[in-house]
Amino acid sequence: MGSNPPGLTWTLIQEARARIAPHVNLTPVLTSTTLDEESGARLYFKCENFQKGGAFKARGATNAVLSLGAAEAAHGVATHSSGNHAAALARAARLKGIPAYVVMPDNTAAPKRAAVARYGAAITLCEPTQAARERSVAEVIARTGATMIHPYDDLRVMAGQATIGAELIEQVPELDMLLCPVSGGGLLSGIAVAARQLRPRLRIIGVEPEDADDAARSLRAGRIVPCERPQTIADGLRATVGERPFAEIRRYVETIVTVPDAAIVAAMRHLWEVLKIVVEPSGATAYAAVMAGRVEVHGARVGVIVSGGNLDLDALPWIKRAPG
Amino acid sequence: MGSNPPGLTWTLIQEARARIAPHVNLTPVLTSTTLDEESGARLYFKCENFQKGGAFKARGATNAVLSLGAAEAAHGVATHSSGNHAAALARAARLKGIPAYVVMPDNTAAPKRAAVARYGAAITLCEPTQAARERSVAEVIARTGATMIHPYDDLRVMAGQATIGAELIEQVPELDMLLCPVSGGGLLSGIAVAARQLRPRLRIIGVEPEDADDAARSLRAGRIVPCERPQTIADGLRATVGERPFAEIRRYVETIVTVPDAAIVAAMRHLWEVLKIVVEPSGATAYAAVMAGRVEVHGARVGVIVSGGNLDLDALPWIKRAPG
Repeated sequence: MGSNPPGLTWTLIQEARARIAPHVNLTPVLTSTTLDEESGARLYFKCENFQKGGAFKARGATNAVLSLGAAEAAHGVATHSSGNHAAALARAARLKGIPAYVVMPDNTAAPKRAAVARYGAAITLCEPTQAARERSVAEVIARTGATMIHPYDDLRVMAGQATIGAELIEQVPELDMLLCPVSGGGLLSGIAVAARQLRPRLRIIGVEPEDADDAARSLRAGRIVPCERPQTIADGLRATVGERPFAEIRRYVETIVTVPDAAIVAAMRHLWEVLKIVVEPSGATAYAAVMAGRVEVHGARVGVIVSGGNLDLDALPWIKRAPG
Repeated sequence: MGSNPPGLTWTLIQEARARIAPHVNLTPVLTSTTLDEESGARLYFKCENFQKGGAFKARGATNAVLSLGAAEAAHGVATHSSGNHAAALARAARLKGIPAYVVMPDNTAAPKRAAVARYGAAITLCEPTQAARERSVAEVIARTGATMIHPYDDLRVMAGQATIGAELIEQVPELDMLLCPVSGGGLLSGIAVAARQLRPRLRIIGVEPEDADDAARSLRAGRIVPCERPQTIADGLRATVGERPFAEIRRYVETIVTVPDAAIVAAMRHLWEVLKIVVEPSGATAYAAVMAGRVEVHGARVGVIVSGGNLDLDALPWIKRAPG
């Protein structure tokens, strides 16, 4: 990768939208009188937990896989992922009828592993560090000749995730602000580029767990500052922001705020209770910034990205289980 | 009540729909490729867990309260309910600016009690039997002069619940079969009357917990056979079928099947996992009949009523909690 990677364009986003439309859900936007009264804002929840595979990752992975030429695709696709991108890539590969090879950190939630296996991908487990993930996937690619589909540092993936922004702005044209979780940055950067095209004055704000705040620190430093062994409960938000996403985030994102894990758990539980939707910790992180008062939203019309709903229902963070 | 009570008419249902439209949600219908593949059917989930107050009861209670004349309304409304009707009545009374008096069985889930209190109703607890509920509410009415709004044995309430059937048939005109949970029968009877008008050949099937199977036994016996102290986990389905609903059920419902509590819990968990929605045990009971194979659905287009999503998130039936 060069130090000045090519950027995500509106054309790439439009092409992605047409390409993936038959294979992904146009997800609903939910609202709640109760949550509006509590926050003093108008909140619009873009529910990617209702996406195919239970997370937004279906969009980017499907766009990347369907973009491949026949020769390139023949040897299959490979990636490393904490879960949702892995399942999405496995599903997209099955759609196209090619093999998928997936490297997963060994602390990934069990249902996320099971989802990948169900779509027929070959799984390799590794240590939960960025270095181990990258080393392990390089070995897989050397052995199989598969094409790497990076979970976020890939313009095809970013263009796929960007379709969420385009959709949401069509569904709720009057938005003032948009809150989006950040991990590798594919989602946030994609949405920011789409918003820049469709509604340039829409304020785009990233939200990150305090225990995995590499993107917030990177934005302040003006260069990527990785986190080693991030421990946040938001298992989808442990990756380090990628070079290509970071370039767009620096251009178009106003700020990145952070929330503690306790606020993420409280936000997740509150969304279950009030909206009646199953949201994973990562998926509740953007709303956690509202509920914990980390962003001033009073009187604003705020888009809140609910990124996914895949988690182990036997291990809910607010219930202490009996041993054995 | 006479032995031949007046019936629910299509006119009452149409009036109810117009009356409550500004105050309730037009709830979405969800589908899932996974659940369709598993069942061999096309399943259409009518999600009343997304209704105001988290359950279908908002419809009937709102219709009943808004039907009252000023003089009648002045002394308030009263009811007995295991929870969702109580909260719905409290909300409707607040909309109209009149008092609400609610009798609740003392084994009602804590969040359902809290919801009623939050809407400002006066709560009286009683033993969890039909006789105690009726005795207790009679005392309240004698003291306050409030108008009884029965949770199901009331044409205004039945007409409100019936709007679900009218809506669902508009949303999915091609349905072959409709599965609906049964407790007091207000929901099932309302939907059956609406379906009879709009799509006479639609097969209407009730689903009841094995441990509270009074409606199934009543339908076989041709007269109401109450259950004493039903113990099912589906706390919204413990009431005995009412006279007015039973009259419509006998006319228009093909059959009532039963499901064990274990099947209800498995169905509930599966809906959380696959559809990513929070459903209470009662709300998963209709789907439990599909998942447990109690209804032959192969090749059919099946409407499945998800009646509510209110439950204690600290006490999930599949997690054994640590003591203390």
